[in-house]
Amino acid sequence: MKTFHITKPDEQIRSLLIDKINNLTKPKGSLGKLEELALQIGLIQQTLSPELKQPQNILFAADHGIVDEGVSFSPKEITWQQISNFLHGGAGINFLCRQHGFTLKIVDAGVDYDFPENKGIIDMKVRKGTRNYLHEAAMTVEEMDLCIERGAEVVRQSHAEGCNVISFGEMGIANTSSSSMWMTCFTDISLEKCVGAGSGLDSAGVRHKYTVLKQALDNYKGDHSPEDIIRYFGGLEMVMAVGGMLQAAELKMIILVDGFIMTNCMLAASKLCPDVLHYAIFGHQGDETGHKLVLNAMGAKPLLDLGLRLGEGTGAICAYPIVDSAVRMMNEMDNFAHAAIIKYF
Amino acid sequence: MKTFHITKPDEQIRSLLIDKINNLTKPKGSLGKLEELALQIGLIQQTLSPELKQPQNILFAADHGIVDEGVSFSPKEITWQQISNFLHGGAGINFLCRQHGFTLKIVDAGVDYDFPENKGIIDMKVRKGTRNYLHEAAMTVEEMDLCIERGAEVVRQSHAEGCNVISFGEMGIANTSSSSMWMTCFTDISLEKCVGAGSGLDSAGVRHKYTVLKQALDNYKGDHSPEDIIRYFGGLEMVMAVGGMLQAAELKMIILVDGFIMTNCMLAASKLCPDVLHYAIFGHQGDETGHKLVLNAMGAKPLLDLGLRLGEGTGAICAYPIVDSAVRMMNEMDNFAHAAIIKYF
Repeated sequence: MKTFHITKPDEQIRSLLIDKINNLTKPKGSLGKLEELALQIGLIQQTLSPELKQPQNILFAADHGIVDEGVSFSPKEITWQQISNFLHGGAGINFLCRQHGFTLKIVDAGVDYDFPENKGIIDMKVRKGTRNYLHEAAMTVEEMDLCIERGAEVVRQSHAEGCNVISFGEMGIANTSSSSMWMTCFTDISLEKCVGAGSGLDSAGVRHKYTVLKQALDNYKGDHSPEDIIRYFGGLEMVMAVGGMLQAAELKMIILVDGFIMTNCMLAASKLCPDVLHYAIFGHQGDETGHKLVLNAMGAKPLLDLGLRLGEGTGAICAYPIVDSAVRMMNEMDNFAHAAIIKYF
Repeated sequence: MKTFHITKPDEQIRSLLIDKINNLTKPKGSLGKLEELALQIGLIQQTLSPELKQPQNILFAADHGIVDEGVSFSPKEITWQQISNFLHGGAGINFLCRQHGFTLKIVDAGVDYDFPENKGIIDMKVRKGTRNYLHEAAMTVEEMDLCIERGAEVVRQSHAEGCNVISFGEMGIANTSSSSMWMTCFTDISLEKCVGAGSGLDSAGVRHKYTVLKQALDNYKGDHSPEDIIRYFGGLEMVMAVGGMLQAAELKMIILVDGFIMTNCMLAASKLCPDVLHYAIFGHQGDETGHKLVLNAMGAKPLLDLGLRLGEGTGAICAYPIVDSAVRMMNEMDNFAHAAIIKYF
């Protein structure tokens, strides 16, 4: 697998950042989370005057072999049909990207459909959906490496375009199942607590999903290394997101983390390179069972809790204006020393 | 006191709104709070295609007689000095208004300072600060009525300018004290739980503040009517905000509610006209002790919880993009019936 050189931001600037934040014209600490974000972003960018440039949302899409076991409320065809909707601009992620000035990129990581060319889809297809991990590994080592490399490639392109803040989203019917498998393998949380309703299962549906996934977990005979768990239970879009996250951290970009699935991708990425977490801003705590638990397990406190469970990057992008506010606070707010000098009246 | 004709939004359109929301291209309910907001705003505006126009933040400022008892960490002069900072554009509220396209209006409701003219301050001064309610009523009936009327006048002006979504902020050293008094009088929550650190008291300071306010509460011999409590313990800027909120609801404007002080203004307004609450969107749950309790007492679930405790309208305005997202969802998202017809590929 490709190696990423991710370093913890240099701490030397921390005290200067704290000084600047504390001397803005407000009671100390009174801008709460904005002050924490300003500190984190200042560390990432190693500056007292941070900037957000060319935000992008990368939406990776793929299909999942496990869908054959009836683990999802939605049929598999929704994956490619929603891609059509994204390209038309009529989906949830579209209006949010327009609202907040994000460029939206749609990446075919492994959708089981032949898309026409020249529609604006970035073709990174590794294969037409994963294998069914109830019976065998979702992908080979070569396919996993390809996903990591292609996710990184997409992010290098974004960086070259001037982007320094990036969000990742996903579309892939049955990918909450893969996420639950990663989550239970990478934490000490029982599978039962990791499994939820996804796009709309009722309680009988959730029970069936759990039974299938429990069997898949019992069938797994791998070496329990992060690489093997990622490969065995992963989705192609999810592994591509992991590669994207690692590349973004290497390039010292700010990573906005979306809902349940992207949180589990960040969890997986952190098992490969723990320092990736210094670059992560968790946008939203969603309604999917287990999301709160995995966030807690990572010590992550997301900015929003709006009951979203749509994916696509929507939760991360809804949180963007708060990140923007933190940066504006650093650049636009006056400090006490200066305010005392100006005599306006 | 001026009478406001506030009516509950007509419910007839509710089922049409729910139909529209449920048929957007997403799993039902998966946009969580955005869907709730879209319903509320659709009801307020009586349309399936709501609009947000010319958002304004009205910042009422005034001084408080109770400040003489040492209940605040900050000296009284901060009130007028911060007005200077607001006019310079260097305060917290300024960068947030710029970020989210809000017009900021600064209203002198009763600051104990002679501002020069032609600096852009809206002069609604009723008197130079309230009386000290440890010993006597903060204002007379005539002064209270004037505050209500002038707050309403400012909002009528905003409405005439095309504004249909309005936020209220405040600046007034010692106004958390007034807020705590209203809160304990209008709920069954003990004064002790309503009193907090304000702009930065330590625990000894909070104890002293509580002792003073407890004495003021014991000294009160009024008739316990909402009008009398508002008048006796109120701040001029707070009563003006109450008048502004009631006028905004009468004009069917969306009201964004800020932190601890503005939440208590909305509480007071609701004691005069309960239907004002249909027009209220609570922006933020702040760190001031008691804010969570008063929100719970009102059954209000704010959009954000960012640990802000600055006031000025900052919490409300940070929440604005979420309100905007709800409106965009209604106008920009495709529905399943239409998405099925378009054959993109």
